[in-house]
Amino acid sequence: MKPLLVALATAALFAAALVADEGMWTFDNFPRKAVAEKYGVQITDEWLDRVQMAIVRLETGCTGSFASPDGLILTNNHCVRSCLAENSTAQRDLVGGGFSAASRDAEIRCQGEQASVLVETVNVTDQMTKALANVPPADAARVRNQTLTTLESTCEVDAEKAGTPLKCEAVSLYQGGQHWLYKYKRYDDVRLVFAPEYAIAAFGGDPDNFQFPRWCLDMSLLRAYENGKPASTPGHLPVNWAGAKQGEAAFVAGHPGTTQRLLTVAQLKAQRDVFLPFWLIRFSELRGRLAQYSKTSPEAARIATDYLDTVENSIKVRRMQLATLLDDRLMERREQEERKLREAVRADAALEALAGKAWDEIARAEATYRKILGPYTWLEGGAGFNSDLFGYARLIVRAAEERTKPNQERLREYTDAALEQVRQALAADVPVYPELEQLRLSYSLERMREHLGPDHPVVKRVLGSATPDERARQLIAGSTLASPKARLALFEGGQAAVDASKDPMIALAQAVDEEARALRKVYEEQVQVPEQQAQQAIADARFKVYGTSIYPDATFTLRLSYGSVQGWNEAGRPVDPFTQLSGLFERATGAAPFALPKTWLEAKPRLDLTTRVNFTTTNDIVGGNSGSPVINGAGEIVGLIFDGNIHSISGGFWYDAEMNRAVAVHPAFIRAALENVYKVPAIARELGIQAAATATAR
Amino acid sequence: MKPLLVALATAALFAAALVADEGMWTFDNFPRKAVAEKYGVQITDEWLDRVQMAIVRLETGCTGSFASPDGLILTNNHCVRSCLAENSTAQRDLVGGGFSAASRDAEIRCQGEQASVLVETVNVTDQMTKALANVPPADAARVRNQTLTTLESTCEVDAEKAGTPLKCEAVSLYQGGQHWLYKYKRYDDVRLVFAPEYAIAAFGGDPDNFQFPRWCLDMSLLRAYENGKPASTPGHLPVNWAGAKQGEAAFVAGHPGTTQRLLTVAQLKAQRDVFLPFWLIRFSELRGRLAQYSKTSPEAARIATDYLDTVENSIKVRRMQLATLLDDRLMERREQEERKLREAVRADAALEALAGKAWDEIARAEATYRKILGPYTWLEGGAGFNSDLFGYARLIVRAAEERTKPNQERLREYTDAALEQVRQALAADVPVYPELEQLRLSYSLERMREHLGPDHPVVKRVLGSATPDERARQLIAGSTLASPKARLALFEGGQAAVDASKDPMIALAQAVDEEARALRKVYEEQVQVPEQQAQQAIADARFKVYGTSIYPDATFTLRLSYGSVQGWNEAGRPVDPFTQLSGLFERATGAAPFALPKTWLEAKPRLDLTTRVNFTTTNDIVGGNSGSPVINGAGEIVGLIFDGNIHSISGGFWYDAEMNRAVAVHPAFIRAALENVYKVPAIARELGIQAAATATAR
Repeated sequence: MKPLLVALATAALFAAALVADEGMWTFDNFPRKAVAEKYGVQITDEWLDRVQMAIVRLETGCTGSFASPDGLILTNNHCVRSCLAENSTAQRDLVGGGFSAASRDAEIRCQGEQASVLVETVNVTDQMTKALANVPPADAARVRNQTLTTLESTCEVDAEKAGTPLKCEAVSLYQGGQHWLYKYKRYDDVRLVFAPEYAIAAFGGDPDNFQFPRWCLDMSLLRAYENGKPASTPGHLPVNWAGAKQGEAAFVAGHPGTTQRLLTVAQLKAQRDVFLPFWLIRFSELRGRLAQYSKTSPEAARIATDYLDTVENSIKVRRMQLATLLDDRLMERREQEERKLREAVRADAALEALAGKAWDEIARAEATYRKILGPYTWLEGGAGFNSDLFGYARLIVRAAEERTKPNQERLREYTDAALEQVRQALAADVPVYPELEQLRLSYSLERMREHLGPDHPVVKRVLGSATPDERARQLIAGSTLASPKARLALFEGGQAAVDASKDPMIALAQAVDEEARALRKVYEEQVQVPEQQAQQAIADARFKVYGTSIYPDATFTLRLSYGSVQGWNEAGRPVDPFTQLSGLFERATGAAPFALPKTWLEAKPRLDLTTRVNFTTTNDIVGGNSGSPVINGAGEIVGLIFDGNIHSISGGFWYDAEMNRAVAVHPAFIRAALENVYKVPAIARELGIQAAATATAR
Repeated sequence: MKPLLVALATAALFAAALVADEGMWTFDNFPRKAVAEKYGVQITDEWLDRVQMAIVRLETGCTGSFASPDGLILTNNHCVRSCLAENSTAQRDLVGGGFSAASRDAEIRCQGEQASVLVETVNVTDQMTKALANVPPADAARVRNQTLTTLESTCEVDAEKAGTPLKCEAVSLYQGGQHWLYKYKRYDDVRLVFAPEYAIAAFGGDPDNFQFPRWCLDMSLLRAYENGKPASTPGHLPVNWAGAKQGEAAFVAGHPGTTQRLLTVAQLKAQRDVFLPFWLIRFSELRGRLAQYSKTSPEAARIATDYLDTVENSIKVRRMQLATLLDDRLMERREQEERKLREAVRADAALEALAGKAWDEIARAEATYRKILGPYTWLEGGAGFNSDLFGYARLIVRAAEERTKPNQERLREYTDAALEQVRQALAADVPVYPELEQLRLSYSLERMREHLGPDHPVVKRVLGSATPDERARQLIAGSTLASPKARLALFEGGQAAVDASKDPMIALAQAVDEEARALRKVYEEQVQVPEQQAQQAIADARFKVYGTSIYPDATFTLRLSYGSVQGWNEAGRPVDPFTQLSGLFERATGAAPFALPKTWLEAKPRLDLTTRVNFTTTNDIVGGNSGSPVINGAGEIVGLIFDGNIHSISGGFWYDAEMNRAVAVHPAFIRAALENVYKVPAIARELGIQAAATATAR
């Protein structure tokens, strides 16, 4: 699993939701009673508060948890891979070789990373409903954006005044059924403490990804800093080094990215018919280009590996998602559920007035979505300009233009509240590899030409008489945007600096902006907002028909799932929930991705080969949960989520209690690695390994 | 369009078939009356006989027509691209530079090519039905194969005795509703006479493929030889250099490859859910690898271009096919049609006994197909061993084993009748490029490992502890099979020579053969034969319910379609059926694929820019029709099919009279090229261009 895979959708079987270990629950609506009945574990307010304050959202798309009083964050190795790559050079490959800070001074800043702790949530559904009441459809998108921006900025100003600066984010839950303001304490300074080698962290590579049995040390340690010092985090979660037993209750807290279990059939079919095939064909070719490029030299392989991993992971996810949506039995079940809810709505005049037309409105919006998906994706989605330099250029061009407008009139990602993040992205000193840029940009220009056609005005304007290869080369060679200094100068200089710039990437971003913005306007006004309004009506109706004991779709916000340590039955064959070290050494062939690093081969005689390595639980998770702790009833960390089994991918649309399993690193494996392989006593001590003897003996 | 794209399926609207220009008709069942009524053209027996004898099937997957009395064959440039590539070197690129034989002595043999003329057809449905009557299901596949092999070999022995050697092939029409024996005169010696440069033949490249307006000189000339001399073909078709007028009746004769208009809904859904996504993802990545490899050097680009073109073309086709099958309206219409036919069957006891269970049997077979598609494709389909050298190895290994069995017991492609083709394939001196082999083989091994899993016994046996890259390198470096002499020695040496061989590719083909053959057995016995029997029952029932005025699905056998020269209406905008030379020069940017070759840039002042270039007709065609002549009511060639518009791709499943158009080269464009650009007077004369003045003036 990779950080925050933007995934898709299924309607939960609401009646069955509390029987199966289903749901990514908000902390305010956790089904404590069902958990107590099924597992005999009482989840208290104190338990919830403590866990909430110990979980961090890594803004690049993962979860982590504080595991020491000095801001140490336990997360996955794959969650820090970009940070490792950005701090690597041809001479020093931190992804391949791993990293261990000899002292706190040697901890390396992850430029693009931020860690956020959710400290408070406020329900603002009423404000949103009021603001949008009687607003004509043509204005709805604008009013919605303005309201959200105002809510957020007021919240941040108030917090600033109170002396406790917070980041405030508007969140829609239940596909628009509820609106909330989420308030985060954000750590902007996050540093790398420890990461094992790629070969053991991702042992088995893409072939084993989403598979089980498994043997991956997919862990790493970061540290949150505040004012240049390690953050004080007394509320951290202790690790129980014995781990969880088979059948024991297990809780996973984290920030699952996206599920689409509440989508209508029209929305699901658009995913099935248009979005997923389009995406899969596009990224499969990109995968081929990256893989072939990787073969040209070891340095090329190093440069491409992080991006290639992400692409391969996403392909696996979307391939399974498409297979799920192509299963007519699932679609028919969803159609039945939808029919049933619509009948209930029709049978009640008040509900009919509220939501009677909602499904048709969504179907209409989806028809528009199907029509614009191509151009929207290529131009506004940026698929036609797959390049970090272009990404910077667009940020700069749009930030300049948006800052000339009042805060509430801006695109949502350029409000005052958001601009600091734009600035940080531009300031981050991460490497730009011209060869990789060339590969990505030439590819995306070529495919854009194929899909929009050589006669499309934007294609003609962008390519002129050049081939995609030639044009990409000119753009990349001519651009200064690989330099953070150059980027910041343009950002600070605003519209005048942008207009005066001779940077060809800036010129490109300007040249396509009118069409791109026009498509975004169509998308927001004719797809997004009407769908959100209709979905809100459906969500309201669903609350009224089925009650509130349902959970919202995942939205990369804090959730808690429950379950237990369990294997499953694969085609008649039981799969044991645990793997052990002996299996790792048996599986190692010496050839990547089944080659063990030297550290492990040398350490073998010192290791207890019955040590548990990875394990599975029934918890309902999804991409974004990467790095989430598995927590026991006592509030101790007993595992580290890093993947799901192959069946868990359908979890974007539905939870299958029989087959869906989360995959976690066992604490015993981490302990063996720190103590007997990498021999990092300071880190082991900080994680309380001295104290662990007690825990193990309990 | 590319040679013989194995395509998919739709049920024709039988009632409407004669109203629209729908159908790829066999010559014995051409709807003359409907054509006479609609177009006022009387198609006589003489017309049909003459056309049939002038059409050749190019065995690599295209159509051509005799266009001179000396065996000259008019076909597409893309149909001879493999021949051009095989005869190219790093110093002399015939694909890019084109080819023109200075004299007949200079004509180049296309090693892999054969040209066949259909001279007779015999209906053998009764024999097949009798042979299979009362055969238990477990034996049906074997008996079917034996019967076909016997029919073919008897036919060939008889022809040999009569002094007129023929190739006899069993053909199933109407998805098994009829069985025929087709007898061909085959020319084994086919040579290259003329081909323009790639840049003008495929002007617009992949972006313009399946698009219109269009400006492609997608033509070439081959010559059939007999006993080392140009074949005598007095029945050739003359070219009418004026071409067809808008609205004029147009006939297309040729060998359309595959349509699937008579498939059941269960079969269509297996294509939609399993086959097409699997194929598209696999080949999109291969496209990326080939494209990236092409960038490493001009020689790499030359080596990869033919294969890359084929892959890109197929992706475009299958992408549209998937979109077609994902259109629920189409699927619902097919479900309705199926329900209607099933009701008619149920209402008649005799029909019920014949076909009542057929649909359920197909659904059962498709369930098996879904299960085995993966392993079957990787192992028996050879997708896991994408390599010419492996292809040779499998031919050699299987030919050796099969020849130890009686003729009737062999796999169908190794019967006595078929072995000569195996021998010719092994003897053909076509280049094998180790770098391209490495790319294809390492890719396919890697994906096979991903899909079957690293623990699959064949994967373990094939890879051992090597990476796919390493293993591919060993196999390719160690193999001698790039040499035709080495291949023939193994072929002639039979089982003993194969067993004594130390060639690693031979060893690989042997090592996977047991599992591959086992999967083939499952496929034939549990999918193919039960489906053919069920489809035959459905076809019989359909004849009885709807009569015989229906056409069979395309099977790469001779067909005739009718229609007229017409544009269409694209989203409210009328598309003119003709393009002219001025448009070609306007569209040329100087950058591939929109760069004109020097010959055309220099010739521009000599050219009449109003000359017609390409045009569209309503004819119902599909891949395999590439190179088919467009013929007028007088039996003259008035165009050369080379593509369809984007809507024509759905033609695998249904014919849409409003939107479906064939795309052809206009004779005036060919004439201008031969007379004013390439200045090849001997060829122009042989094509009767002197006489054309009369035709033009008519």
